Amino acid sequence: MYRTHTCGELRLADKGKRVTLSGWVQRTRKMGGMTFIDLRDRYGITQLVFNQKVNADLCERANHVGREFVIRITGEVAERSSKNTHIETGDIEIMVDELLVLNRAKTPPFTIEENTDGGDDIRMKYRYLDLRRTNVRANLELRHKMTFETRRYLNGMNFLEVETPVLIGSTPEGARDFVVPSRMNPGQFYALPQSPQLFKQLLMVSGFDRYFQIVKCFRDEDLRADRQPEFTQIDCEMSFVEQEDVLNTFEGLAKHLFKTIKGIEINKPFPRMMYADAMKYYGSDKPDLRFEMKFVELKEAVSGRNFMVFDNAEYVGGICAQGCASYTRRELDGLTDFVKRPQVGAKGLVYIKFNDDGTVKSSVDKFYSEDDLREIGKCCNAKVGDLVLILAGEREKTQKALCGLRLEMGTRLGLRDKNVFAPLWVLDFPLFEWDEETQRYYAKHHPFTSPKLDDIQLLDSNIGAVRANAYDMVINGVELGGGSIRIHDSELQNKIFELLGFTPEKAQQQFGFLMDAFQYGAPPHGGLAFGLDRFVALFAGLDSIRDCIAFPKNTSGRDVMIDAPNFIDNAQLEELNIRLDLKEKIE
Amino acid sequence: MYRTHTCGELRLADKGKRVTLSGWVQRTRKMGGMTFIDLRDRYGITQLVFNQKVNADLCERANHVGREFVIRITGEVAERSSKNTHIETGDIEIMVDELLVLNRAKTPPFTIEENTDGGDDIRMKYRYLDLRRTNVRANLELRHKMTFETRRYLNGMNFLEVETPVLIGSTPEGARDFVVPSRMNPGQFYALPQSPQLFKQLLMVSGFDRYFQIVKCFRDEDLRADRQPEFTQIDCEMSFVEQEDVLNTFEGLAKHLFKTIKGIEINKPFPRMMYADAMKYYGSDKPDLRFEMKFVELKEAVSGRNFMVFDNAEYVGGICAQGCASYTRRELDGLTDFVKRPQVGAKGLVYIKFNDDGTVKSSVDKFYSEDDLREIGKCCNAKVGDLVLILAGEREKTQKALCGLRLEMGTRLGLRDKNVFAPLWVLDFPLFEWDEETQRYYAKHHPFTSPKLDDIQLLDSNIGAVRANAYDMVINGVELGGGSIRIHDSELQNKIFELLGFTPEKAQQQFGFLMDAFQYGAPPHGGLAFGLDRFVALFAGLDSIRDCIAFPKNTSGRDVMIDAPNFIDNAQLEELNIRLDLKEKIE
Repeated sequence: MYRTHTCGELRLADKGKRVTLSGWVQRTRKMGGMTFIDLRDRYGITQLVFNQKVNADLCERANHVGREFVIRITGEVAERSSKNTHIETGDIEIMVDELLVLNRAKTPPFTIEENTDGGDDIRMKYRYLDLRRTNVRANLELRHKMTFETRRYLNGMNFLEVETPVLIGSTPEGARDFVVPSRMNPGQFYALPQSPQLFKQLLMVSGFDRYFQIVKCFRDEDLRADRQPEFTQIDCEMSFVEQEDVLNTFEGLAKHLFKTIKGIEINKPFPRMMYADAMKYYGSDKPDLRFEMKFVELKEAVSGRNFMVFDNAEYVGGICAQGCASYTRRELDGLTDFVKRPQVGAKGLVYIKFNDDGTVKSSVDKFYSEDDLREIGKCCNAKVGDLVLILAGEREKTQKALCGLRLEMGTRLGLRDKNVFAPLWVLDFPLFEWDEETQRYYAKHHPFTSPKLDDIQLLDSNIGAVRANAYDMVINGVELGGGSIRIHDSELQNKIFELLGFTPEKAQQQFGFLMDAFQYGAPPHGGLAFGLDRFVALFAGLDSIRDCIAFPKNTSGRDVMIDAPNFIDNAQLEELNIRLDLKEKIE
Repeated sequence: MYRTHTCGELRLADKGKRVTLSGWVQRTRKMGGMTFIDLRDRYGITQLVFNQKVNADLCERANHVGREFVIRITGEVAERSSKNTHIETGDIEIMVDELLVLNRAKTPPFTIEENTDGGDDIRMKYRYLDLRRTNVRANLELRHKMTFETRRYLNGMNFLEVETPVLIGSTPEGARDFVVPSRMNPGQFYALPQSPQLFKQLLMVSGFDRYFQIVKCFRDEDLRADRQPEFTQIDCEMSFVEQEDVLNTFEGLAKHLFKTIKGIEINKPFPRMMYADAMKYYGSDKPDLRFEMKFVELKEAVSGRNFMVFDNAEYVGGICAQGCASYTRRELDGLTDFVKRPQVGAKGLVYIKFNDDGTVKSSVDKFYSEDDLREIGKCCNAKVGDLVLILAGEREKTQKALCGLRLEMGTRLGLRDKNVFAPLWVLDFPLFEWDEETQRYYAKHHPFTSPKLDDIQLLDSNIGAVRANAYDMVINGVELGGGSIRIHDSELQNKIFELLGFTPEKAQQQFGFLMDAFQYGAPPHGGLAFGLDRFVALFAGLDSIRDCIAFPKNTSGRDVMIDAPNFIDNAQLEELNIRLDLKEKIE
């Protein structure tokens, strides 16, 4: 038997008990004739004591036990003379009389402690050691709890978890598929699903009524910091529902998670915002509402003063940073540099300081009188001590840049506390999105998204203005999930395909089985999918999703620990009826 | 709003309520001036009534509603005059006053009823309609419940569900991998996991202590009736455990599922059987213990009577089929044909009838006296009225054939009731398995399986006799799950690799990261994986796993509904740096 208790379990009430523990040696130290070992497992740390006077031989062996050795000990629970209030087992220690080394350990490349990770490359190569660190493991414990509670909530709401296939067909629309050559069907390929979208809609046609699945999805995209080639969705679909039903159900799920995981009771309904307003006031379809700092349109207020930057701009917008009038020249230059970064994309920054002494100072004093500036300040609701920041240019680009500036100011002002949560529904997304490059409309969400009933007549006249029954749940500026009411009417679906430039043949080829299925009695239905990785990262207070994934890949899509992907045998390729066709020789 | 209630919800207590229901039209019938519609959803069937006298127009519209149309109705709950005791809503009906056709339906290729499935090919092509059948959907509801209860049990036992990656590296050992070309790493491939074995062992090295995952696994094998290229495992691993701990934990899981899902309380421990005994008495490592009919070794009892078939045989074994002495010539010929099938593989069958009138009759009367035959009967514990069936030949083959015969007799005698469950642990599997073809030993389980402590000294002398700390859970002749205690000692692991013919370089190349990890302090650990598909099939009383999978593939690995796999664009191939290399031209 390896243990009677875990290393996180013993308390003063256990005093006098004879116990056996197993775990990893966190650290050893000698003091007087005593050797102390902190023994660690997933559940906690327990202090072991070896007394040279009582058993010199045993104590000597304890002195030779190294960091991260795996040991089993037996001894008696005793009360500590100097208690450790930082750990739950801090009232007791074990007077050890038996010690067995279960496994020795080489010195790890970094110490297994909260703040010593040896850097990203080493962490990932030795991920199995990185995962020993309590804070890293805590993220995965959180992930487990969140999926468990998600299932508990959805099961309680009559949802059925149904596994959909991983080996499916490739759909050239959208992001790139990972494909899998089929040995038994020479020349043909499976694809890994980017989402179970089609299958969950088929399940609705099958009368499953309420479906969910916590499921791996795959996208062969060039990876940014916060993207992984495989990611996990909480994928859901419901029949006989309107948008309101879907919002209520999944707002309920979010509230359940806040309550059971974070201990936060949210009684009020989540605020709702139209997509158009989100863009107008925050320059983003996922505004961070932990702080206000709304955009103010200033075009009218600033025009006609011969400041050509503003006069020629399609859009002039400002935000008011409270209490920032005291910003120095250097700080303001820093902000200008910030907005000029390619990721933000502005050409310059105009500021107006409403100083504590009542004076007004701006970077455009040459063009605007103090009264002009005060008028602009009034538009922005600026008070004494505030700083107004203004960007100008092409509408969409400028709003995006102003969004970046707003978030930066929020961060600088400490308004983006990770322990504060500001949930939001963004509604009424446009159905279509114009793409300049290919000069055509694309489905903003996906081609099965239903237009708003009121906007159907616009399909023939002003397609860009058609709004969708589509919605996103946004918390703290993170899009946690999104979905839509689907089209269940074949005729309307055909019309949408046509508008998206699908020939009937191409639509049939790609979505034929869904279109066919819809002819046998499709119920009205809609759904939503949460990005689990993002949801966990939000709850864990992480900036990246990587640390809530046990074995993540790097930005080249590599798992550096197992060194995958890698080359395979020619025999394997031959069986699969494929050959390498490299542009450059591999060394 | 589409509904106030589901179609399975209303009872007599709801009489007089005004309700709205939505669902599919199961059937319509006209009787007198009335039209009746059975409205179906996932939750049940409710009878709708349209009265020509009350609303002729509405009734006329109801008459034009076809099978599988999706409709919404509103009306008042009324008590039925002739109640239907077969359905839970059988006491009530709805007097409809509003009808809306939500979607029309083409006539389905088969009627949506329990026993009309139109044959396998049609079912699979229209799987979304097949899934509407209550009995098919019930299998997936069962699957949902089983995974939910599995998670509830394991969560309660402190297991953490951790997702391991789907895009991993290829390991040429074992079954064939599905591979995925990596666009970002030209010429290199990911592989889809056959199991998360290595990752779960790494999680033990990481101190996760108790891991589980309900996870898709992949094998590119030629498919038999009961195999799928993607299948689901309940994959588990525990640290600081001995075999007994693992058996208790997962016997507990099985008992929890029996209790919560099937309402069967199993209080006694599962019986345990050594692998050697399973082979000796049942000719199988997964004996069906719903019935006894043990093998009896008869070599000694039958030798020396000049019957060369027995005298020359390495093995002679018999079973006693109770009450089968009355079998006719034709029935016995049928059994002989059965054992001669290539799948069973015997050359012939010897029988001895212990007739009700006290006489004895056999197919070898020429060689054996009545006393001889009675003596053999005594060995087999045959009573008056019983039939002894004997096979002879090479030991392993004959035991396998006798196993087939035993199961056949069990089936014929009605001893394999699907509502009776006979669980069993099979223990002490051999560590290695000799392969005639390649003339070498392979790991019977996998190369990380620990030998029994007592047998370690045999590694150098009699490798075939070394038993493993490996175990299978078997219920009704189905291997539901299996696992082992793992080797946590690098030296022993290296020795096993050597015995399996891995050079140190090859072992390093394939399992290097695990071997490396083990040097940093690996805890003793072990685990088990259940085949979820089989577990559900067992509980559902299904002969094949296909019907507990929502969208299964056929024996060519095809999904005929979505027509996958399929050809992909040349542009896609080019991006992936591969080219087709077909042996034959594809038309």
